[in-house]
Amino acid sequence: MSELRKDPVVGRWVIISTERARRPSDFGPDPVRPHLTSCVFCAGHEDKTPPEILAGRPPGTPPNSPGWTYRVVPNKFPALRIEGDLEPSGEGPYDRMSGIGAHEVVIETPDHLATLATLPTEAVAEVLLAFRERVVDLKKDGRFQYILVFKNHGEAAGASLEHPHSQLIALPIIPIMVTEEIVGAAKYYELKERCVWCDITREERRGRRRLILERDGFVAIAPFAPRFPFETWILPARHRSNFEESGVDVLRGLAGMLGEFLRRMNRTLNDPPYNFMLHSAPLHEGALDHFHWHLEIIPKLTKVAGFEWGSGFFINPVPPEDAATSLREATG
Amino acid sequence: MSELRKDPVVGRWVIISTERARRPSDFGPDPVRPHLTSCVFCAGHEDKTPPEILAGRPPGTPPNSPGWTYRVVPNKFPALRIEGDLEPSGEGPYDRMSGIGAHEVVIETPDHLATLATLPTEAVAEVLLAFRERVVDLKKDGRFQYILVFKNHGEAAGASLEHPHSQLIALPIIPIMVTEEIVGAAKYYELKERCVWCDITREERRGRRRLILERDGFVAIAPFAPRFPFETWILPARHRSNFEESGVDVLRGLAGMLGEFLRRMNRTLNDPPYNFMLHSAPLHEGALDHFHWHLEIIPKLTKVAGFEWGSGFFINPVPPEDAATSLREATG
Repeated sequence: MSELRKDPVVGRWVIISTERARRPSDFGPDPVRPHLTSCVFCAGHEDKTPPEILAGRPPGTPPNSPGWTYRVVPNKFPALRIEGDLEPSGEGPYDRMSGIGAHEVVIETPDHLATLATLPTEAVAEVLLAFRERVVDLKKDGRFQYILVFKNHGEAAGASLEHPHSQLIALPIIPIMVTEEIVGAAKYYELKERCVWCDITREERRGRRRLILERDGFVAIAPFAPRFPFETWILPARHRSNFEESGVDVLRGLAGMLGEFLRRMNRTLNDPPYNFMLHSAPLHEGALDHFHWHLEIIPKLTKVAGFEWGSGFFINPVPPEDAATSLREATG
Repeated sequence: MSELRKDPVVGRWVIISTERARRPSDFGPDPVRPHLTSCVFCAGHEDKTPPEILAGRPPGTPPNSPGWTYRVVPNKFPALRIEGDLEPSGEGPYDRMSGIGAHEVVIETPDHLATLATLPTEAVAEVLLAFRERVVDLKKDGRFQYILVFKNHGEAAGASLEHPHSQLIALPIIPIMVTEEIVGAAKYYELKERCVWCDITREERRGRRRLILERDGFVAIAPFAPRFPFETWILPARHRSNFEESGVDVLRGLAGMLGEFLRRMNRTLNDPPYNFMLHSAPLHEGALDHFHWHLEIIPKLTKVAGFEWGSGFFINPVPPEDAATSLREATG
């Protein structure tokens, strides 16, 4: 019997459709395997990207030379431009604004064939520290309200280059999905005087049916009302609203958790394409009691079609309890 | 220069990214061409579907026999089940409800190789009348709050069978996207005492930069802040909130408009996969001054990736003015 479930943060209903139930092996996206051995993001091709903004490199080596462990460079085809003023304007009943923002690429490793699942924890931690450093730096620019860190892995998940990389986009507006989370979480806090994500974490650690993994101060859970099969949230076990305030030890913990989760996911779903998106509190609101930063991971297993685009409802053929069981039993 | 634009109905911002601008011929989805010549939806295979609920057939022919022009059948793998009571229940901080609903398939023609773009207007009108008749019938069931009519055309747009068909799902809840439209439109009405879609239609008929086509009492426009390249809205030129109240002449007008629009789209974009979704007022609210029913059509040309899933922002590489120009200049 199918079931409707409501996300306790944003109030979005999903359909968990057991009539269309599928096992992990029933999903058929092509596994993500690199086809090239070298590309513009590889070591030795530093002149093929815009000049680096930040890099992990041995002391004394010049920028844009080989020897780096990660590099952050401007996106060559940015969705938004860094230069200019925010200029709101109207046109009849419509509103527009100049496309000001920052769009950067974090090249996670010089090795074309490595991934966040195969890199040593220390190298993953370096990438996370690079996210933090870029957010801290861009936060100084008063034009930006929000910075979204995200990753597209595999062509089906929207990656146009296969070399391991993440991206960040700094925006002059708080995105609607983050606003929905904040509004929902503030309402919950008003009612209960507790953070909704803290309550979710407590519930899942107690019930364990949707708990995937706990380690290093982080919890990985299958959310109660996931939009997508095998959707997973990774949250710090202790309440924290701002990712960029995380210390080195916290990010090392996240690196260990993320690597292990991705290895389990790859084993369960045969190296699927996936996206991750980091949700942190807006840049200029300080620490919030009602917002809890988290990383959302969605393997790309199903197609989004007319029903979803027309309703905002998602049909998910895998109950999160089943997804959590598969991921819990996988080795990482 | 990229630009941020805000949808005047729901307030969602999009990025019109001219840095990533593309011409219609730059999009590369495989054209939708049937691979089979016969399937379970074809004439003569009436016993391979669940028994028909409604069909266009000559007087005197028995149900589930050949000779029909369209058939409506229950979906064999329904997302929601028609039998049972709505049973809301809680689990810790979570809410759920039994998966009650109706999920029907409208087989648009017995001809596997026809499409809504190639069928005669009269046959398309019959399909639209079938939508209306099913909505009117399901509306009598007090468990349902909303019925979404939609179509997935082509595998990339989520179609699992290539035979021309649409679907409808009756839901016990008003979907979040419709609620967002209603809330936004009600706010606009409160301020201006005018329907926002009527204002949009007036603006586009005057300015003509985003007007694609006017005929038979309908207007096709490229919306000001489209999520997707070549996204198109078809609206009745006169204010109407409920699709199911449309008379036969109105639906004949829509059939002419829809066929011509699809032929223009196919010519411009080389038979792309696409979705359409019908937004009408909720079933039990009567006629609304602030809601205007409309059909949203989205060709499937780009991939939705981490930035979109994490932000609710969409990056659209085609300004709607350019899309409208291409579609206006195409022949239908």
